[in-house]
Amino acid sequence: MNTDENGETSKAPLSRGFSRGVSILDLVLRVIAVVGTLASAIAMGTTNQTLPFFTQFIRFKARYSDFPAFMFFVVANSIVSAYLILSLPLSIVHIISSRAKYSRLILILCDAAMLALVTAAASAAAAIVYLAHKGSARANWFAICQQFDSFCERTSGSLIGSFAATVLLILLILISAIALARR
Amino acid sequence: MNTDENGETSKAPLSRGFSRGVSILDLVLRVIAVVGTLASAIAMGTTNQTLPFFTQFIRFKARYSDFPAFMFFVVANSIVSAYLILSLPLSIVHIISSRAKYSRLILILCDAAMLALVTAAASAAAAIVYLAHKGSARANWFAICQQFDSFCERTSGSLIGSFAATVLLILLILISAIALARR
Repeated sequence: MNTDENGETSKAPLSRGFSRGVSILDLVLRVIAVVGTLASAIAMGTTNQTLPFFTQFIRFKARYSDFPAFMFFVVANSIVSAYLILSLPLSIVHIISSRAKYSRLILILCDAAMLALVTAAASAAAAIVYLAHKGSARANWFAICQQFDSFCERTSGSLIGSFAATVLLILLILISAIALARR
Repeated sequence: MNTDENGETSKAPLSRGFSRGVSILDLVLRVIAVVGTLASAIAMGTTNQTLPFFTQFIRFKARYSDFPAFMFFVVANSIVSAYLILSLPLSIVHIISSRAKYSRLILILCDAAMLALVTAAASAAAAIVYLAHKGSARANWFAICQQFDSFCERTSGSLIGSFAATVLLILLILISAIALARR
C-alpha cells in the first residue's frame, strides 16, 4: 500500500504493488491448502468403526487401512501438506523480491506435480466411498454403508479438504504464472 | 534454426530460437497427449466381455458402463482429448509469435484444470481396477478378474494412456511457464 501512495504517477511502483498483492494471495492460499490437506489426512487417518455385533467368521470392524485407496489418501495428503509447509518460506521470499524467476518456475513444476498427487488421492478415495455407498450390482459388491454408517460419513467428509486443495493448487499455479508474466 | 544462424552474435535471436524450440516441443507433447487420452477413451469405451456360462440370477457380462468410475474415465478422457485438439491452433500461434502473454496464461489455467480432470479419471478407474484384481476382504468384495480376465486386462491397459497424459500435462504447464519467464 505504501508503495502505491509514494509513486502513484509512475507505472513501476503500481506494478510492484500488484505483484506484492499476488504474492500475498499466494501465501494465503497456500496456508488454506495446508489446513485442507492436513485436516483430510487426519480425518481419514483416525477413522475406524467397530460394530456392536459379530459372527464367528467376520469381525465387523472397519479402519481406513483396510482399503489401500484410503491408505494412499492419507499418505498423499500428508506429503502434499508437508510440501506446502516447506513452500511457505519461498512464498514469503516472493513477497519481498517480486522479480524472482527460477524459484517461481520450480514452484510451478512442484505445484503441478502435487496437484496431480492430491487429485489422484482424492479421486481414488472418492471411487471407493462411492462403492461403499452404492455398491456395484454387476460385480456383486454390496454397499457397506448401511452397517458402517459413521465410517462412511467420516471418509466422505474427509474428501472435502482434499478436493478443496485441488482447486487451490490450480489457483496457485495460475498465480505463479501471472507473477511470471508481470515480471 | 535460420534465426540462430543469422544473428548468433546478438542475444535476442538466440532467445527467440529457444522460445521457438520450446513452443514446438509444446506442440509435439500436445499431439502425444491427444493420442494418449483418445486411445484410453476408446480402449475403455469399447470394453465388454460376456462369459460363456450363466445362471438363472446373474448374467455374466461386464461392460465399462457397469462401473460409474469407468464411465467417468471415458467422458473425462474424451473431454481432455477434445480440449487438447482445440488447443493445438493456439500452440501453433505461439510458435510464430513468441511474445504472447495472455494466451499462455489462459493455456496454463486450462492445462492445470485438465491435469486435475485426467488425473481424477485415471485414479478413480485405477482404484476400481485394483479392487477388481484384489477385491477387499474387509468389505466382502470379491475379485472379479478370475472370471472377467479380458475385461480386466483391457481396463488396466487403458489406464496407461491416461497416466501418460498426466505426466505430459505437467510438462506442458512447465513449458508454458518457461516460455512466460523467457519472454
